[in-house]
Amino acid sequence: MIRTHNAGSLRAADAGSTVTLAGWVARRRDHGGVIFVDLRDGSGVVQVVFREEDAHALRNEFCVKVIGEVTRRPAGNENPELPTGEVEVTVVELEVLSEAAPLPLPVDDQIEAGDDIRLRYRYLDLRRSGPANALRLRSRASQLARGVLHERDFLEIETPTLTRSTPEGARDFLVPVRLQPGSWYALPQSPQLFKQLLMVGGMERYYQIARCYRDEDFRADRQPEFTQLDIEMSFVTEDDVIDLGEAIVSTLWKDLAGHEITRPIPRITWHDAMARYGSDKPDLRYGVELTELTEYLRGTEFRVFAGAIDAGGYVGAVVMPGGAAQSRKELDGWQDWAKARGARGLAYVVLDAETGEARGPVAKNLSAEHLGGLADAVGAKPGDAVFFAASATTREAQELLGAARVEIAKRSGLIDENAWAFCWVVDAPMFERTDEGGWTAVHHPFTSPNAEWVDRFEEAPDRALAYAYDIVCNGNEIGGGSIRIHRGDVQKRVFDLLGITPEEAQDKFGFLLEAFKYGAPPHGGIAFGWDRVCMLLAGADSIREVIAFPKTRGGFDPLTSAPTPITAQQRTEAGIDAKPKPAATAHTGTAGPAAPVADPV
Amino acid sequence: MIRTHNAGSLRAADAGSTVTLAGWVARRRDHGGVIFVDLRDGSGVVQVVFREEDAHALRNEFCVKVIGEVTRRPAGNENPELPTGEVEVTVVELEVLSEAAPLPLPVDDQIEAGDDIRLRYRYLDLRRSGPANALRLRSRASQLARGVLHERDFLEIETPTLTRSTPEGARDFLVPVRLQPGSWYALPQSPQLFKQLLMVGGMERYYQIARCYRDEDFRADRQPEFTQLDIEMSFVTEDDVIDLGEAIVSTLWKDLAGHEITRPIPRITWHDAMARYGSDKPDLRYGVELTELTEYLRGTEFRVFAGAIDAGGYVGAVVMPGGAAQSRKELDGWQDWAKARGARGLAYVVLDAETGEARGPVAKNLSAEHLGGLADAVGAKPGDAVFFAASATTREAQELLGAARVEIAKRSGLIDENAWAFCWVVDAPMFERTDEGGWTAVHHPFTSPNAEWVDRFEEAPDRALAYAYDIVCNGNEIGGGSIRIHRGDVQKRVFDLLGITPEEAQDKFGFLLEAFKYGAPPHGGIAFGWDRVCMLLAGADSIREVIAFPKTRGGFDPLTSAPTPITAQQRTEAGIDAKPKPAATAHTGTAGPAAPVADPV
Repeated sequence: MIRTHNAGSLRAADAGSTVTLAGWVARRRDHGGVIFVDLRDGSGVVQVVFREEDAHALRNEFCVKVIGEVTRRPAGNENPELPTGEVEVTVVELEVLSEAAPLPLPVDDQIEAGDDIRLRYRYLDLRRSGPANALRLRSRASQLARGVLHERDFLEIETPTLTRSTPEGARDFLVPVRLQPGSWYALPQSPQLFKQLLMVGGMERYYQIARCYRDEDFRADRQPEFTQLDIEMSFVTEDDVIDLGEAIVSTLWKDLAGHEITRPIPRITWHDAMARYGSDKPDLRYGVELTELTEYLRGTEFRVFAGAIDAGGYVGAVVMPGGAAQSRKELDGWQDWAKARGARGLAYVVLDAETGEARGPVAKNLSAEHLGGLADAVGAKPGDAVFFAASATTREAQELLGAARVEIAKRSGLIDENAWAFCWVVDAPMFERTDEGGWTAVHHPFTSPNAEWVDRFEEAPDRALAYAYDIVCNGNEIGGGSIRIHRGDVQKRVFDLLGITPEEAQDKFGFLLEAFKYGAPPHGGIAFGWDRVCMLLAGADSIREVIAFPKTRGGFDPLTSAPTPITAQQRTEAGIDAKPKPAATAHTGTAGPAAPVADPV
Repeated sequence: MIRTHNAGSLRAADAGSTVTLAGWVARRRDHGGVIFVDLRDGSGVVQVVFREEDAHALRNEFCVKVIGEVTRRPAGNENPELPTGEVEVTVVELEVLSEAAPLPLPVDDQIEAGDDIRLRYRYLDLRRSGPANALRLRSRASQLARGVLHERDFLEIETPTLTRSTPEGARDFLVPVRLQPGSWYALPQSPQLFKQLLMVGGMERYYQIARCYRDEDFRADRQPEFTQLDIEMSFVTEDDVIDLGEAIVSTLWKDLAGHEITRPIPRITWHDAMARYGSDKPDLRYGVELTELTEYLRGTEFRVFAGAIDAGGYVGAVVMPGGAAQSRKELDGWQDWAKARGARGLAYVVLDAETGEARGPVAKNLSAEHLGGLADAVGAKPGDAVFFAASATTREAQELLGAARVEIAKRSGLIDENAWAFCWVVDAPMFERTDEGGWTAVHHPFTSPNAEWVDRFEEAPDRALAYAYDIVCNGNEIGGGSIRIHRGDVQKRVFDLLGITPEEAQDKFGFLLEAFKYGAPPHGGIAFGWDRVCMLLAGADSIREVIAFPKTRGGFDPLTSAPTPITAQQRTEAGIDAKPKPAATAHTGTAGPAAPVADPV
C-alpha cells in the first residue's frame, strides 16, 4: 500500500508516529506561513499541516501522498466533532499523485446539486459522504442477506441473462444473435422460470442477487435494469417462506437501521388491506382507516352514492382528523388532487368543531338520519372532515380512499418519519376480470390456489385465493412471492380458466410444463426489490441513491452518454436485419413444436 | 416444511423416531411383499420400506412424502457405503406429491449422456450427484471469496449492464432502446471502465461477481455470457493486488480442493515464461523446459535454422524424454500435429537409446560439431527425442515449442493429475507490433508501464514492460490484472504511441479521460475467470459443468430453445429500424463532442 495508515484512524495514541497517508485535499485553510488541509480518504478525514511554500499549489481534490508526524493539536484547537480531532499530521514530504482541474461539482456534503450534474460527474458525487455511504450500506445489506441464507443452506446459483423472449407482460429488452441471424435473446424480467426449473432439478434452496430487466415507460423511479434478491425453496409452505423473509428483513433492519422488528410481522389479508386501508401495500405507521358505508347509506337519494350501491358496488369514507379547519381553498385542493388521480372529485362533509353539525356540498344531499349517524358510523369527531368515495367497482373506490388516506397523513403530519411499520399482505386473489370479460392471473399463471380453492377455483374465480404474499414496509412493497403450482392437472385447469389453449401453453411455457412431468416438488419463493430495500434502509428518497451508476429518464446515462447509435458494420455483423431461418431448419428444444413462438419478421 | 428430517441425515441414533421425509424415488427393489426404495433429497439418500400394496405404483423420480419409523437395519443388512446405511424407514403413510413420466435421461450417476440431452433436460441432469455438487461447489466458492474480500473492507458494488458500446476489440452484444429509437445499449465485456470510475470516486476497494458478455465465435469452451470475480483497489502497488489474489486462491483451494498452496506463489516474468515454457500460462506440474539454441547453432548451414538466425529470430528445442522409442508413425504424427497448429512441421532428432547417436531427418543437416554437443546443450539423454522450432519471430517459435511441451507431457504421462501448480506471470510487455507496423496494447491502453519504463517507453516500445500480472493454475490462466495509468500525461503519451489521436481518444474514452482530470488515485486490480476457477476446483473438464444453464455451440439453449425470432410488433416497438436522431438533438454527456461515436445507420 502507498499509505501506512488510514487518515480517519489516527488518534491521540498515535502521536509521535511517522505516518504515510494518501487521499484527497478536502479543504484548505491558509494561516500565514502555514496551510491546514483536511485530508480525506475512505476512512475519514484528518488535519494535515504544511509549510506554505510546500503546499501553495494544492487545490481541492488533488490526490496526494504525505509523510509526516502525528502530533497532538495545541490545547484548545481540538475538534471534538471529528474522530481524529485530537491530532494533526505535520507534513515533512508531499507528493502530488494527481492534480484536479476546477471542479464542475463541489465535493461538499452541504451542496444540493441536480441529478443530471451529479450523475454526469458521479465519480465526484461519490466522494461526498452521503452517496458513498449509500453504496457502503448496499454492500453491507447484500452481505447480511447472504449470511442469513447461507446459514440456512441456501445455494447461490447464477441463472442466464441471455434467454428466451416471452412476448407478453412487460416488454423484453432484446439482443440480436450474430451466430443465429434473425434470432434474438431476451434479457430476463426475473429468474422466475429458471428458479422453478432448479427446484425441479432438486436444488431445493436457491438464491441469487439477480439483475433483471424491464423495458417499461419510465415512471418516476424506474430503472431499465434493477436488482432483486431472488429466492426459491422446495417442500415448503407459505409459512416457511414468510419465516425466511422475516429473518432477512429483521437482520437488515437491526444492523443497518438499528431497528428491532417485532416478529411475527403482522399479516393482513389482501381483502382486509383493501377494506381497511384502500391499498394492497398499506402504510401502517398511522391509523386513519377506511369505513365502508354501503349498508349504512342504502336507500339514500344522493344519486352518486345510490348509483354505486344499486350497481352492487361500494360507498366508503375516510376521516381527516381536524379537517374541518381547512380553508375553502384547501378543500377545493382535494378536488384537484382527486381529478389528477382520474377520479371525478372527492365528496366530503366537514363536522363543525363546536356543534358537530355536518356541512359542505354532500351534506345537503344526505337525509337527516344519514347525517345524524354519520360521525358514529365513520368514527369522526367534531372538527373532522369526512371524505367519501363511491363506485360500482369496489376496488376503484377503495383505492381512491386509500390514496386520500395517505394524503391525509401527509397533510396532517401523521407520519412518524422515524417509525418502521411492516406487514405481510396475504391471501391475494388468484384472478381478476379482464376488460374483455375473461380472467387474468393477478400474480402469474404459476401461482398456486390455496388449499381451500385448489379443487374448486372455477366455481368462483373472483373469490378464489392464492398462496401469494407481499411484504410491505411503510407503504412500500419490498418483496413478494407465492407458492407455485407443481401439479400438471392444476396447471392445466388454471390455463383453461385463463383461456390459454394447450397449444398456446406449449408454445409459451413448453419447457416448464415438460419439466413438471418429471416429479416436480412442491415449491415456492419470494423476491425482494433490492434497490427499494436499500433505498429505505439508506433513508433515501429515490432508488438512484443506492445504485452506483443509475440512469435518468428514458434510460439515458449522463456519464457515458449511453445509449448511442451503432455503426453500419455493427448492424450488419449482429444480423439485426437478417431474416430468421425457416422454422423447419431452426433448432428446436423441449419447448414443443418446431414453429417459433413469434411470427417471423 | 413438508418434511421433519432430511433423508441423508438419519443415523442409528434416530431409531425409534417417527419422521416425515420428502424427496425422490431414486431406486426401487421389489422383494416379495416388500418394496425397498432409495429416497433421495438434497441431503442424500435413505432406504425406505413399503408394503407392496402401498407402493406398487411408485416409479423412478416420483416426488413423494412418506411418514414412517426409523429402525435399525437387520444385522448383516447394513450398508457401510452409505452414511444412512445403518437404518431404514418403515413407511406408514405415503403421499405422491407428483408423478414422473418415463425419463428421457436416467437420473443415474453412472450414465454418461451427451451434452445436448443433458442440457435439454438439465433439471433431470441436476438431480445427479455430480452436476448438483458442481453447483454446490460454485456457491461455496463465491461465498469463500466474498469472505476474504469483506474481511479486507472491500465493498460489493453492482455496475451497469446496459451501457455504452465501444466498437472495437471483441464484439459487443447490442440492445435496442425503445425510448430512444435508433440508439442501442451494449452489454459490457467487463466492468473495467466502471470500476476505474469507482476508484476515481474514492470507493478505494471494490469487488463484484459480475456477469460479462462477449460476442465471440464460439470456440470449444466459450459462453456468450460468463462471470468474473472483478476487483479494483486504490493506493496499491502490484504486490498488494498479488497478495490479495493469493489470499483468495489459497482460501478456495484449501477449502474446496483440500490443497494448501505454498505462498508466496512463484512469480515468473512474461519473458522467462516464454523462454522456458513457450507460453504465457505455463503448466508447472512438470518440467520439460525449452532451450534456446540461437547462439549454439549460429553458423549452421541448415537453411531452416540459419534463416531464422539471420533474420534476428530464434531457434530452440524441447526434449521428449524417452521419445526415441516412438514409432515412425508416432513421429510422423507430430508433423500432423504441428501442421494442425499452422506450423510447417516439427523438426526433430532422436538420440539412440544405446549409443546416444543423433538420427532423424534433421540430423543429416547439422554439422558433426552441432550434433555432438546437442544432447548437452538441450539436456537430453540417450533414448530421448529433441524437437526444434525456428522462426524469424521469436514468439512464434517459442509458442510452437510450448505447445509441443504440453503435448509431450500428455503423451508421456508426465502430468500428475492430482497436482496443483500455481504461478504469477509478471512484467508483461506493454506493446506489440501491429501488422501495419504500428503498436497495439498487449493488455488495454489503460495499463500502466512499470517504474522503469514509465518515463521512456517510447524509446523501445517492444521492450517496455507493464505492471501487468496473470495468475496461472496448471496451465490455465485463471485471473489477470494490472496497475492502471492514473496520470493524464502518461495516458496521453500511451495514446500517442498507439496512434490514437486526441479526438479519437475523446470520442472513445472521453468520460474516463474527463474523470482522470479530477485527482484520480493510483489504482489497480484483477479479475478472475470465475467459471474457469470453479471448473478447476470441481475437477471438471468444461466450464459448462459449473454453469446452471449453459449454452451449447452458437449460443443455443437446448432447454428453452433461445434465441428465437421476434414478432413484427416487438421489432417495431423496440425501435430496431428507427433512424437515430441527428446528433445535434441527441443527449450529450461528458463523453465529449455531441457527434455520436458511431456512424448513423
